[in-house]
Amino acid sequence: MDSHVTLPTPPVSEFSMPSKTKLKITALAGGVGASKLLLGLYEVMDPGLLTIIVNTGDDIVLHGLKISPDLDIVTYTLAGIVDVSKGWGFRRETFHTLRRLAVYGRPNWFNLGDRDLATHIHRTAMLADGKTLSQAADSIRNALGVKSCILPMTDDPVPTLIDSNEGSLHFQEYLVKRRAEPVVRGIRFAGVESAHPAPGVLKAIHAADRILVCPSNPLISIGPILAVPQIRNQLRAHQEKVFAVCPIVGGKSLKGPSDKMLFHLGHDPTALGVARLYADFTGTFVIDPADQAQASTISTLGMKVVILPTVMKTCSQKRKLARNLLSL
Amino acid sequence: MDSHVTLPTPPVSEFSMPSKTKLKITALAGGVGASKLLLGLYEVMDPGLLTIIVNTGDDIVLHGLKISPDLDIVTYTLAGIVDVSKGWGFRRETFHTLRRLAVYGRPNWFNLGDRDLATHIHRTAMLADGKTLSQAADSIRNALGVKSCILPMTDDPVPTLIDSNEGSLHFQEYLVKRRAEPVVRGIRFAGVESAHPAPGVLKAIHAADRILVCPSNPLISIGPILAVPQIRNQLRAHQEKVFAVCPIVGGKSLKGPSDKMLFHLGHDPTALGVARLYADFTGTFVIDPADQAQASTISTLGMKVVILPTVMKTCSQKRKLARNLLSL
Repeated sequence: MDSHVTLPTPPVSEFSMPSKTKLKITALAGGVGASKLLLGLYEVMDPGLLTIIVNTGDDIVLHGLKISPDLDIVTYTLAGIVDVSKGWGFRRETFHTLRRLAVYGRPNWFNLGDRDLATHIHRTAMLADGKTLSQAADSIRNALGVKSCILPMTDDPVPTLIDSNEGSLHFQEYLVKRRAEPVVRGIRFAGVESAHPAPGVLKAIHAADRILVCPSNPLISIGPILAVPQIRNQLRAHQEKVFAVCPIVGGKSLKGPSDKMLFHLGHDPTALGVARLYADFTGTFVIDPADQAQASTISTLGMKVVILPTVMKTCSQKRKLARNLLSL
Repeated sequence: MDSHVTLPTPPVSEFSMPSKTKLKITALAGGVGASKLLLGLYEVMDPGLLTIIVNTGDDIVLHGLKISPDLDIVTYTLAGIVDVSKGWGFRRETFHTLRRLAVYGRPNWFNLGDRDLATHIHRTAMLADGKTLSQAADSIRNALGVKSCILPMTDDPVPTLIDSNEGSLHFQEYLVKRRAEPVVRGIRFAGVESAHPAPGVLKAIHAADRILVCPSNPLISIGPILAVPQIRNQLRAHQEKVFAVCPIVGGKSLKGPSDKMLFHLGHDPTALGVARLYADFTGTFVIDPADQAQASTISTLGMKVVILPTVMKTCSQKRKLARNLLSL
């Protein structure tokens, strides 16, 4: 076995680690998948030392309201108000407004709950008042009592567009309206070449003791973050600090259509396929024991490989992976 | 008694009139008070022959949403979805979004229900798409199945500002936030001099067989409509067709702070005081039997005076006043 490959670490007991670590962590995150790990981190470290850079390619304007799904999923999760069964939205949510919007002939394929709408209305009003998306995100996480810093990857609109056998679709149309059924032929982040990293993003990468790439879709959750000018280069400059958690286990997505999208776009829908996409900026690639057989091949890409249980179904699993990542 | 004064007409039985009349009616309306009469009219005449010109001076932008309280009160009332006990908003409404807006530090003194919010979101989105307030009002009343034409007095923003002992307040701040407690020193309709009547407004006055001024606040419900250039002159040109229902009975407002506002601004808070404000464009002034003693003085202003029961607490009273007005 290649010297870069680390065998599965002995499992860390819930009680054998100091409950807080002093490492400054910066995480790159999409939505639901990332939030599992983020919640684990939030609970086992000083949350004030955690900074999260969030994908905004999923953002969409509906009914004149600026909706930032991944920012909200991360924020609601850490605030403890998320609907855990779905991974997004408020728990015990109602949909009275949405039903009445449909009466006015407005599209209702995107679920907007009554409580959730307050977030979109507040953010939209802040933007109309000349504030930035970063300022809105900070206002929201502060109001909800989240102690970690939550940064959009950019304050500029960079909508993810899916080129498919049904034409060009906004990512939300592809995912939610069309339930990820169209065949993906290409992905574009419209306007990304002229986007700027949001204030604090480059510094958060520079200043971190450890940078974690959460187990999110590499193409449409982490991909947009990497596509913002300067961010990928900044990660490369700190490659030894970058730990990426593979979102594919045993050839299947932990969450969402990653495997299918990888396949349709000519990538291997495997840990190795993801590793190839991350090799230029990642120091350590974290795979599940299920993919142990790919470890030595992945290590030939120039990354260390660490094998850790990455499937997080329970709170305990989330905390355990978080602790393991902090203890590497 | 002056020859212009008509004694109380014998009450019209619910069953002695044809259930529909072929008169084309145009009504000038504020919110809650007007809607009582409008609902009566809607039920006793062909609603397709009814056009309602609605005050928009009350309109306000809150949380980036364009709110048109009087348009919505009239529309919800005729659609049969209004909260009858309050006279505004949806019946069986919930306020989940508003409570969450307050968590974000947003003002929550203006009650915005979850179902009601769909109307504001839809209207705001239409305006952002380049549509007019008239088009939004028409879209909303059509979606809600209202068969009468509902026109805003103007598509231009003409906010009613109250000069008070607490400074200049938007009308909603004065009425809702400050519960009509400040002493009113003056009323302005900001920008009204350059406002235009909404499409169809002047024609609706011209083409009507009868123009009804609903029992609304003469200063801040009917007043803004009259202040839009050309509308008052158009009414004067059709004075013989104008029937105004007095909103003051026995020296008290049927609804809201009309009496107090009239008093503070140097008008008599009586039927006569209102009559003076309407005399230049009204052919027939309708007062309640409680104010019969003022009839002959009012008639000296040059209007016919008709005495009819104008207090509408029950559906039957609303229909009866409507029938009486149609049968004059």
